Amino acid sequence: MKPSIPQGTRDFSPEVVRRRQYILNTIRAIFELYGYQPLETPSMENLTTLMGKYGEEGDRLIFKIINNGLNDPKNQEKAKIGFEKVLEGKNSPDLTERALRYDLTIPFARYVVMHQNDLAFPFRRYQMQPVWRADRPQKGRYREFWQCDADVVGSDSLINESELLCIYQGAFHKMSVPGIEVKINSRKVLAGLAECCGASGLLTDITVAIDKLDKIGMDGVQKELLQRGITEDKLNFINNYLNITGDAESQLIQMSQLLASSEIAQTGIQELRTTLAYHNQLADKNWNSNVVIDFTLARGLNYYTGIIAEVTTNAVKMGSIGGGGRYDDLTGLFGLKGLSGVGISFGVDRIYDVMEELNLFPEQLSSSTKIIFVNIEPAAETAILGYVNELRKSGIAAEYYPDKAKFDKQMKYADKRNVPFVGIVGESEMKDNVIKLKNMISGEQETVNLMQLANVLADSI
Amino acid sequence: MKPSIPQGTRDFSPEVVRRRQYILNTIRAIFELYGYQPLETPSMENLTTLMGKYGEEGDRLIFKIINNGLNDPKNQEKAKIGFEKVLEGKNSPDLTERALRYDLTIPFARYVVMHQNDLAFPFRRYQMQPVWRADRPQKGRYREFWQCDADVVGSDSLINESELLCIYQGAFHKMSVPGIEVKINSRKVLAGLAECCGASGLLTDITVAIDKLDKIGMDGVQKELLQRGITEDKLNFINNYLNITGDAESQLIQMSQLLASSEIAQTGIQELRTTLAYHNQLADKNWNSNVVIDFTLARGLNYYTGIIAEVTTNAVKMGSIGGGGRYDDLTGLFGLKGLSGVGISFGVDRIYDVMEELNLFPEQLSSSTKIIFVNIEPAAETAILGYVNELRKSGIAAEYYPDKAKFDKQMKYADKRNVPFVGIVGESEMKDNVIKLKNMISGEQETVNLMQLANVLADSI
Repeated sequence: MKPSIPQGTRDFSPEVVRRRQYILNTIRAIFELYGYQPLETPSMENLTTLMGKYGEEGDRLIFKIINNGLNDPKNQEKAKIGFEKVLEGKNSPDLTERALRYDLTIPFARYVVMHQNDLAFPFRRYQMQPVWRADRPQKGRYREFWQCDADVVGSDSLINESELLCIYQGAFHKMSVPGIEVKINSRKVLAGLAECCGASGLLTDITVAIDKLDKIGMDGVQKELLQRGITEDKLNFINNYLNITGDAESQLIQMSQLLASSEIAQTGIQELRTTLAYHNQLADKNWNSNVVIDFTLARGLNYYTGIIAEVTTNAVKMGSIGGGGRYDDLTGLFGLKGLSGVGISFGVDRIYDVMEELNLFPEQLSSSTKIIFVNIEPAAETAILGYVNELRKSGIAAEYYPDKAKFDKQMKYADKRNVPFVGIVGESEMKDNVIKLKNMISGEQETVNLMQLANVLADSI
Repeated sequence: MKPSIPQGTRDFSPEVVRRRQYILNTIRAIFELYGYQPLETPSMENLTTLMGKYGEEGDRLIFKIINNGLNDPKNQEKAKIGFEKVLEGKNSPDLTERALRYDLTIPFARYVVMHQNDLAFPFRRYQMQPVWRADRPQKGRYREFWQCDADVVGSDSLINESELLCIYQGAFHKMSVPGIEVKINSRKVLAGLAECCGASGLLTDITVAIDKLDKIGMDGVQKELLQRGITEDKLNFINNYLNITGDAESQLIQMSQLLASSEIAQTGIQELRTTLAYHNQLADKNWNSNVVIDFTLARGLNYYTGIIAEVTTNAVKMGSIGGGGRYDDLTGLFGLKGLSGVGISFGVDRIYDVMEELNLFPEQLSSSTKIIFVNIEPAAETAILGYVNELRKSGIAAEYYPDKAKFDKQMKYADKRNVPFVGIVGESEMKDNVIKLKNMISGEQETVNLMQLANVLADSI
């Protein structure tokens, strides 16, 4: 039987790992620059920690781990009862006590509550780990994928929002991703819209419908709003809302007038204004992107309550590559009330696809090894091992093909490994204490001594 | 209900993550220096890939994932049959198709077989990922823990063995772990011992018994050998074997005489000699450790067939912190025959404990943030945000306490965060465009301008 891997999972080959590491390391460096601290939580959580936190659909998509030792006579009876429950679509710790992490947010909230007495608040943390979902696999959707989150809890200041916007801009600038737009809105403005439509109870419905504007267009949104219970006479008002344009301050003024009767909307508008003012002071003017207000931004079903943000690039056809916002009371789920937080997430897998499509990965990621010495002249072995040793001492990755093999086979190997140089030491080179150096990109050859070799390799990226 | 995490799993706080990253990054850099390439495989494997590869006990300790959608009427019947099997102690893909990775070796073998036509052999790969085992948790033993492996397949050359020994030495040197000893032996010499005892069929028994020498002493080993079927008249011979001492060459000569009648032993002795000769050419004489022959080294039940190695430190009471060896035909399990390999593993969790106990982690790992500006004078906010912005532009991690709070609370926060400096800008500092800088370690204060501040922070590690 041919071996295979589970549907929706991936092996990452060396080249892919290097490129993923490049993305993660770039984002990590920016997180650290802004004072965010690394956190790692276990892959498994107690099932009770996860259940009920992601809606009914989410519960179904959680991967559960079957308890070990069910065949032990003292576990069998309970296991049978547990299994009956599972057949009814319920869960039972008698069959599955543990489950795989579904996102990084709930484990973070659980961690904060468990360590509330030791943590220094505001607590800024970042987390880059895989999560698992039993979703139907499709292009760009995996059952094991990476989340990359930064959150701060225990601070109400909009400086946090502004800094998180800077982190987005700084990271995508560093990775040279073109066409980046960082869009922001406020859930409070959306709440104000619902209020002004006399439909505060339909806030989620309005949010969900507006969120689809990109996909289904204005007509589609109107149809969906009607289906979801908005009365026809409000459609014009919502139209006006969705059509506000201009520069940021002009947008804020227009919106302030449109939603004049809603106090929460005015709060949201003022928060957007303050966030942008802070951002103006904190942003690096050289970054290759801007932050813009987009009142049509809704961020789907997430439980945000304040400023929300989303990142897209217009250089590639692709959904959002990042998103986040402020949430009140995340830790309330685990009994710690009144702790507000704000966070963002980078869509690592999508960023990878964008960078791949636009050929943005630095060339030198293809191999860390700078040179492979071929193995053709047994008498030269001692000399070559000495060279390899010296190069490694100066921090240059070098290899010696370990087996006797045909010259062509060894050159093919070096080519496949994408190394920039091959070193050849035959009888005559050995006598003269030199190395024949072949540049694998240009095809050029030169003869160098060890000192010259080290210089050439150190200079090549 | 208070939240908790599953038994045998761990949250890694920011400080711990940084220290773990320090270990992993150090080892990664050395792997890369020797031409090893990063590989990552999925956390989940098909159950069929894992079952039967780790012995009966191993099979029991594999964490299995229950299939999703068992309550779907079309899955229920099969699920019931699968559940019955599980109650009998068997496995069934109708209940659990997937399982969590138990080590990194089997997934590596599976990967090589699946990609045999694309890979350039010899294929050197390293892999640093968590693995999961349903073992009873105890001090130093976890249900989720990290393995850190380097293997090369498709090369018979003993240069590989020598380089892997160098990797051990280089890594522990870099991490300044004292008292390191890298011990080597050959399974072929052990096989020769069994042969000379007329007990070739008892090779595993002899190996297992000898492996316990450290724990149970010579008397214990003799008792165990007798229990395992070695006849009393051979004990003296085995004693002679275990008591060979001297420098490497003298050990090899004595062993060659003792096991003169065994061809495989002579091969093993010659391989040890060649490995040490290569190692002598490849090693950096400045490393803080040596490689020594230890004929009592056996490496337990692992399926090694050639040179084996183990790393210990005598600076701390602790088992081995690394081990490995050559194995024939690992990929044969998945149908690809005749590919020999050799690999080593670093015990990351134990290395962490050793470094913690000996206080070996670099000081600067405690925080990446160099300075926190306190938030006490609203009028100074613009100036401070400007400073923070400039520092970040020069790559210096800086924070501004985002909320209004009492000065003492903010100083306590900075202290708890382990930052080296706190910046204070009150009314008078603002007027003079300067910053009062408090050194949190020495307690000293000085007044500096932005340029001076950047220099002080850049100079502090």
